[in-house]
Amino acid sequence: MSCKKRIGILTAGGDCPGLNAVLRAVGKSLIPNGYEIVGFEDGFLGVLQRRYRILSNLDLSGILTLGGTILGTSNKDNPFEWIPPNHMDDADAKPADYSDRCVEILEELGCEGLVVIGGDGSQSMSLRFMKEKNVKCIGVPKTIDNDLNATDVTFGFDTAVQRATTSLDCLHSTAMSHHRAMCVEVMGRYAGWLALHAGVAGGGDVILLPEIPFSMEKVCEYLQERKQEGKRFSIVVVSEGAKLNGEFVIERQVKNSHDPIRLGGISQKVAAEIEARLGIESRATILGHLQRGGSPTSRDRILASQFGFKAAELVLDGAWGMMSAWQKGLITAVPIEEAVSSLKLVQPDDPLIRFAKSIGTCFGD
Amino acid sequence: MSCKKRIGILTAGGDCPGLNAVLRAVGKSLIPNGYEIVGFEDGFLGVLQRRYRILSNLDLSGILTLGGTILGTSNKDNPFEWIPPNHMDDADAKPADYSDRCVEILEELGCEGLVVIGGDGSQSMSLRFMKEKNVKCIGVPKTIDNDLNATDVTFGFDTAVQRATTSLDCLHSTAMSHHRAMCVEVMGRYAGWLALHAGVAGGGDVILLPEIPFSMEKVCEYLQERKQEGKRFSIVVVSEGAKLNGEFVIERQVKNSHDPIRLGGISQKVAAEIEARLGIESRATILGHLQRGGSPTSRDRILASQFGFKAAELVLDGAWGMMSAWQKGLITAVPIEEAVSSLKLVQPDDPLIRFAKSIGTCFGD
Amino acid sequence: MSCKKRIGILTAGGDCPGLNAVLRAVGKSLIPNGYEIVGFEDGFLGVLQRRYRILSNLDLSGILTLGGTILGTSNKDNPFEWIPPNHMDDADAKPADYSDRCVEILEELGCEGLVVIGGDGSQSMSLRFMKEKNVKCIGVPKTIDNDLNATDVTFGFDTAVQRATTSLDCLHSTAMSHHRAMCVEVMGRYAGWLALHAGVAGGGDVILLPEIPFSMEKVCEYLQERKQEGKRFSIVVVSEGAKLNGEFVIERQVKNSHDPIRLGGISQKVAAEIEARLGIESRATILGHLQRGGSPTSRDRILASQFGFKAAELVLDGAWGMMSAWQKGLITAVPIEEAVSSLKLVQPDDPLIRFAKSIGTCFGD
Amino acid sequence: MSCKKRIGILTAGGDCPGLNAVLRAVGKSLIPNGYEIVGFEDGFLGVLQRRYRILSNLDLSGILTLGGTILGTSNKDNPFEWIPPNHMDDADAKPADYSDRCVEILEELGCEGLVVIGGDGSQSMSLRFMKEKNVKCIGVPKTIDNDLNATDVTFGFDTAVQRATTSLDCLHSTAMSHHRAMCVEVMGRYAGWLALHAGVAGGGDVILLPEIPFSMEKVCEYLQERKQEGKRFSIVVVSEGAKLNGEFVIERQVKNSHDPIRLGGISQKVAAEIEARLGIESRATILGHLQRGGSPTSRDRILASQFGFKAAELVLDGAWGMMSAWQKGLITAVPIEEAVSSLKLVQPDDPLIRFAKSIGTCFGD
Repeated sequence: MSCKKRIGILTAGGDCPGLNAVLRAVGKSLIPNGYEIVGFEDGFLGVLQRRYRILSNLDLSGILTLGGTILGTSNKDNPFEWIPPNHMDDADAKPADYSDRCVEILEELGCEGLVVIGGDGSQSMSLRFMKEKNVKCIGVPKTIDNDLNATDVTFGFDTAVQRATTSLDCLHSTAMSHHRAMCVEVMGRYAGWLALHAGVAGGGDVILLPEIPFSMEKVCEYLQERKQEGKRFSIVVVSEGAKLNGEFVIERQVKNSHDPIRLGGISQKVAAEIEARLGIESRATILGHLQRGGSPTSRDRILASQFGFKAAELVLDGAWGMMSAWQKGLITAVPIEEAVSSLKLVQPDDPLIRFAKSIGTCFGD
Repeated sequence: MSCKKRIGILTAGGDCPGLNAVLRAVGKSLIPNGYEIVGFEDGFLGVLQRRYRILSNLDLSGILTLGGTILGTSNKDNPFEWIPPNHMDDADAKPADYSDRCVEILEELGCEGLVVIGGDGSQSMSLRFMKEKNVKCIGVPKTIDNDLNATDVTFGFDTAVQRATTSLDCLHSTAMSHHRAMCVEVMGRYAGWLALHAGVAGGGDVILLPEIPFSMEKVCEYLQERKQEGKRFSIVVVSEGAKLNGEFVIERQVKNSHDPIRLGGISQKVAAEIEARLGIESRATILGHLQRGGSPTSRDRILASQFGFKAAELVLDGAWGMMSAWQKGLITAVPIEEAVSSLKLVQPDDPLIRFAKSIGTCFGD
Repeated sequence: MSCKKRIGILTAGGDCPGLNAVLRAVGKSLIPNGYEIVGFEDGFLGVLQRRYRILSNLDLSGILTLGGTILGTSNKDNPFEWIPPNHMDDADAKPADYSDRCVEILEELGCEGLVVIGGDGSQSMSLRFMKEKNVKCIGVPKTIDNDLNATDVTFGFDTAVQRATTSLDCLHSTAMSHHRAMCVEVMGRYAGWLALHAGVAGGGDVILLPEIPFSMEKVCEYLQERKQEGKRFSIVVVSEGAKLNGEFVIERQVKNSHDPIRLGGISQKVAAEIEARLGIESRATILGHLQRGGSPTSRDRILASQFGFKAAELVLDGAWGMMSAWQKGLITAVPIEEAVSSLKLVQPDDPLIRFAKSIGTCFGD
Repeated sequence: MSCKKRIGILTAGGDCPGLNAVLRAVGKSLIPNGYEIVGFEDGFLGVLQRRYRILSNLDLSGILTLGGTILGTSNKDNPFEWIPPNHMDDADAKPADYSDRCVEILEELGCEGLVVIGGDGSQSMSLRFMKEKNVKCIGVPKTIDNDLNATDVTFGFDTAVQRATTSLDCLHSTAMSHHRAMCVEVMGRYAGWLALHAGVAGGGDVILLPEIPFSMEKVCEYLQERKQEGKRFSIVVVSEGAKLNGEFVIERQVKNSHDPIRLGGISQKVAAEIEARLGIESRATILGHLQRGGSPTSRDRILASQFGFKAAELVLDGAWGMMSAWQKGLITAVPIEEAVSSLKLVQPDDPLIRFAKSIGTCFGD
């Protein structure tokens, strides 16, 4: 081991535009301060399996614009309940606790602490490592759904909104030419931020969110009125978690969220209902992974850089247990514990909802 | 009626980027030659229902960049076998022949002839109108699948390839970060041009076309090899009409092609199989209508303008029964009859297939 | 005149992505409240010359995505000091005060008040109209340079940053392939917000702002070091108002800012100096109007909609003299007077500057 | 040296989107045939200075989407007349012939031949190496201006047209909002292909090409007519080599083409003249390097791949002295000698010019 100070870093959970910008900001800020950056591969899996590489300034150059994460990530990386890959097909295999192995490896490698870039689940693991195993962690919040509580916004969200909006712009031409109702399903299992923002930015006529249970009667009444006013097409933006009459209507064969291997999404249900009830030609489009891939917007690059820079400052300050956050237009830090306590949901009186309603947008309620 | 010469024009079938550029080129070229442009709405439906508007130079300004068609279009507009809308829900309603009504209306409006911008089906209707009813038609070929025989390429195809390629670029980051196989379904029910071109342009590792029946064994063998070489992700590009072991595997609830209200596409089948057989995390994305909406690429704007200009010249020359076409790098004209005789399919020795195979791309055969 | 209430609206000063989104939000929110929207053409010029049109819901549909302003705008529209067009070539023509004529016309048309969407200069005119002529005004701040004091951010800025960032991404390939220093000039005559944000988002190696006077010695020293470390290319982002040794170096033939008819920009000076001093091939690119045209980003569409909605609420509340603003992550309102009191400049300890310096970016100081 | 066969490859002259796609196609096609790929850095300079790297399949992965060239390029790499860098500042330094040194190095490295990806100048060097030094060369034509004679089109051109068209779309909003004439200068010193294609695709009102000398009288007459018809803005597309009254009007301080360090381009002259003669506000924008950077369009990726694949086949066939080409819609090969004999210029009766004139576009003649 080198005589330098070492800090571990990993990206966990679903990929998100801006992860590389965070890695770059953390690394390029800490290296001149005498740190060696131990980049673990595939989230906590890399700690558990001792897979890592030292990230030099050169490794961190040219990655600002790249989507995804150069370190790789994983959705199955919980060291507290893990089944080794060679037992995964074994029906009797029970998950075991490998967290001590992680602590050992972090010590072996001389990591002073661990910067965890991840969402709700990953930050909860950080908390357990801190509380149960005395591992020093710094958090960087990552959620493309924008539903983490302790931060007003996270990187990746702006890119997802921009992608969804561009898609809505694009689908307008088909909607208009064919006089159709185009139903567009966007990410958001519990929170409707993405549907709300893309819906407003893309001029959606109907916006359906998990937080506002909707009825097909209300939606169809509204579309019928539009038709009578001579408006021959409609754009319907639907959160994947939108609830018809307060319930998820579609049994999905999914293991985790955002999974497009499934029998059909809520957008397909809504499109089918509109066509059946009103005789308006309807089509569904599920944007899926297109929302989370590719190069981050300028705003997300800047935001991610600031989150990373703040994380580096927290490391230098020894402010373990803290997480970068964005509040009231400023970068700041909050205890990780606060971040994971509850989801941030859209409120019915959100200014954007009030605006959308004032110009006549339908929320199906 | 004005003492000017009049020509009818319509856009029929699925929408396609470049339709407006054709309308603009036809109109702006014919108006200075003393023509009035009678734009029928929603394809042949507008003729049948006497819905039209006179297109002035002003109407044709600023539409070059717009996706879709300002005239509207329809997939249910065959005047030879038509059910009026008020009988559509009537289970006993039988389609009747309304073609004479169309001829009457064209005569009433004083249209010298009709420019039909449409695909295989619409050009076949033109042929019947010409042969059975003596209507003078000029054709402009439209097919986003690029499968019309008498032309090397049509407008809309370049835009669709560009959209699909951009999506593949975007999905690469998720594929790499999560070490997944991403299966991307593109349009192409009978012909694999779009999958082949987007697959090559987007660096697809596997490309599955309707013309080359594939087996999951071959695909999985190939992906297994990639894994053993340390390549931890793959991009699989699938035509919606790709045939597993020579057959369509999935019963779809579709009435016409490109319809996303359905239980699941071939990409979902392929993704599920890869995950089951190899244990590689796999995801499916169906691009659907995103491929045909939005502003046309510069190339499609130019191509569509040339197709429209040629159609205007054919009108001026009285070359009825002819269709604009692109052959060997030049704009030209062919009899409509030739265009609809057979589909243009990808040949197994297409230069792009030979190239792709030379660099190791798998076609599942 | 109708018995409805009427409100005037205009867009003044340089065009900016999001203007149409503001118009749409104001109009679509006020029309259901019984207002008729009197849209004046080309800024205050339309008031002065009685050129206007009533904006209906239909006029406001489909404009959310359009760049520029459907009302037109002007840079020469100060009614307090105006030269009529037919006297503009007259060398002896003196500007006269036409403000009373404006008041008359507003009264004739029955406008209860005037919503002014404009920058520093236009809001100052609003103030004079309010103070000297008792005209009731509501402000909506517009500045692509982001230098208005009373609001943390304005619409148009995000789009400009995104455009400049995309351009920087694009120029990277030439810089790398040719081992060049690419000097890119962005808007910002007095404030460096755009250069700072685009510079950080686009990974600029050198960022030169009006607020931080730079010397060529410092810039060249830095580039020389990069060369010695084996970095064979550099991206230099320059505000048009950046000051070499504290001074503007280049006499421009410009009447107003952002004008590209000129002998040369600061970026050309910087590129020439780098090439002369270091022998590094250098090229300059002036982004100019590309930064302010085209469709707004999703964020700017949302922001502009919120600014417009707030303005509508201010009208309904009779809160004359107030202006929409964005502060601490929330939409709010401030007195117009506050907004025009001083420019908002980049501070040397801005978090983005601290971040950029921490990763080694050069500011030439 | 390995017992494998070796082939050299280099990219020379100005960078161009698609260069990496060519490198990838040549390499990935030849490696499985037992070749080692010797990639020389910075064009012929890499041969002369023995700077090269062996390109493996891994080096060639992931570069399809990247702009520029991973090998680097140079505009000052003529081995027949070269001044070593350490003598460049020496006013008395005379260029000397270093071509024998190149031959030596190619022999030392065991290169069977050399694949030269470059334009007119570079292919001329290949010819001299073949004729005077018996070096075996294969050519791949590269010219973003599309002015190479023996091929209907080259890679990079479609991307440049797309970039310029997108810029024209973007500038439309400013033109419309401010009622201005926007003059946009695109690449093309001797040939107007880019101005013609982007002009048609972007709906340019005036298009000025090097091949059609223009007069300001004709341009202003046309703009005046537009104004009288109530069209309050215009888009003027100008080739950098457009000739006012048959002459270049502006002395430039340029050493080679496409160089933006200069006093002003023809677009600035045209804008100034329009403003002076007609009193229409006018602005100039020089697109410069934005046209040649960034990721290639799907079409250019496919075209470049096919050019590279053909070059690999020519190597395998021992068809030295031949060059990939695209003719009549097919990939083919032609003698390098043919390619460099003369420039391919726009003919006055080009179908696109005929189309543009038929819809009223002005060419200033």
